[in-house]
Amino acid sequence: MHYLQIMGIAKAEEVMNSVKAIVPFKKKGAKSRLQAFLTEAEREELAIIMLKDVLVALSESKIEEVVIISTCSKEELLNELQLELRNLKLTVRVDEKGLNEVLNEVITDEKASRLILMADIPLVTPESINELIGHEADVVIAPGREGGTNALFMRRPCEFFVSYYGVSCLEHIETAKRRNLSYSVHDSFFISADIDEEDDLMELLIHGNCFSAEYLRMIGVFIRVDKKSKVRAKVER
Amino acid sequence: MHYLQIMGIAKAEEVMNSVKAIVPFKKKGAKSRLQAFLTEAEREELAIIMLKDVLVALSESKIEEVVIISTCSKEELLNELQLELRNLKLTVRVDEKGLNEVLNEVITDEKASRLILMADIPLVTPESINELIGHEADVVIAPGREGGTNALFMRRPCEFFVSYYGVSCLEHIETAKRRNLSYSVHDSFFISADIDEEDDLMELLIHGNCFSAEYLRMIGVFIRVDKKSKVRAKVER
Repeated sequence: MHYLQIMGIAKAEEVMNSVKAIVPFKKKGAKSRLQAFLTEAEREELAIIMLKDVLVALSESKIEEVVIISTCSKEELLNELQLELRNLKLTVRVDEKGLNEVLNEVITDEKASRLILMADIPLVTPESINELIGHEADVVIAPGREGGTNALFMRRPCEFFVSYYGVSCLEHIETAKRRNLSYSVHDSFFISADIDEEDDLMELLIHGNCFSAEYLRMIGVFIRVDKKSKVRAKVER
Repeated sequence: MHYLQIMGIAKAEEVMNSVKAIVPFKKKGAKSRLQAFLTEAEREELAIIMLKDVLVALSESKIEEVVIISTCSKEELLNELQLELRNLKLTVRVDEKGLNEVLNEVITDEKASRLILMADIPLVTPESINELIGHEADVVIAPGREGGTNALFMRRPCEFFVSYYGVSCLEHIETAKRRNLSYSVHDSFFISADIDEEDDLMELLIHGNCFSAEYLRMIGVFIRVDKKSKVRAKVER
């Protein structure tokens, strides 16, 4: 059979088994490590706006369906997001359980591909999402800084088990090995850039044309550059 | 003409104009921000070993030729590197000038493609290097953390001008725009991870199967994981 024909068949299958994304989202008490810099209301607002950026990227990727797992109701979330997304079917699962517990409950019987994406990576691009779900491995891990797992794609979620916290990207690799699943590490700076601390805001202001960067500028957060200093730049307000 | 034929011609041209890489390297006083953690001798040794990892990645990529710009002589460097690289022609330009000055001098008359790669990104992969030089733009920028430029590819270097220090990735984008050159941002976590500070060593220990990670382990640097803490893990010695 001709190469392109085989590719055609693979693509048709992909469309049939389109990947659903799962985005866990916490608003209350979000981003506490930014408390010296942003008020509680601002931190919660930033968390919502970062989720918005993630959803926009998903809507421009091959992903067609997203479940947000949150303690907020769908009405509350949609109201705050103020976002109309074509190309993306959005549902909300209201759940108070811890991250690992709820995610493992969701994937335990799931046989179709799932992508778990963190809600605090507003720089994520549609291109990177598409590349990530295009890897051939059973499990694809996109690391966050300091060993986090900012995106996790599972071709057969029911065969996997998530374990966030700690150096989760190594734990996820170990789990894949133990369960005889092939794995691949997806190399993306924009996915790695989760926004937790003051210095992370710098990445947003430098690279972001997104809602979150706009919000930061609006509340008066900016970068001061000092070419003579060993530290290139600082976030100020 | 058929699509594949056009691709074939593009590939043939690429082979003829193979990309040369430039790696600026500073040993003396290297990595001063690690001084609370490593002795001066260790910092210099780490700098050399990181360069070694970068050269290994280059040798496994499509790059066939590298110029190291350094204050050390070729003999001194090769002696310290203890590395035999097939597939890679290595030359050393001994130069005492500052980074911007020497690089702009090197590229000012250069009409053939050049890739400038920093020497402190030991996690860089051959795949990422190949993707980077595969972008179609005139200028490709791979950002480092906090606005640095860890890799910079120029299709016609003589039309460009480098400006490191400060938020250089934005400066390089501005320069491309001002000179009517198309540009692209290459999204790579492993290229973004330059090793400057204590926390950066964590990335090396987590992701590195490379010489640098091995060296750190050998001198007793390790990661302590604390799942209960907000800070996932810490580098200790």
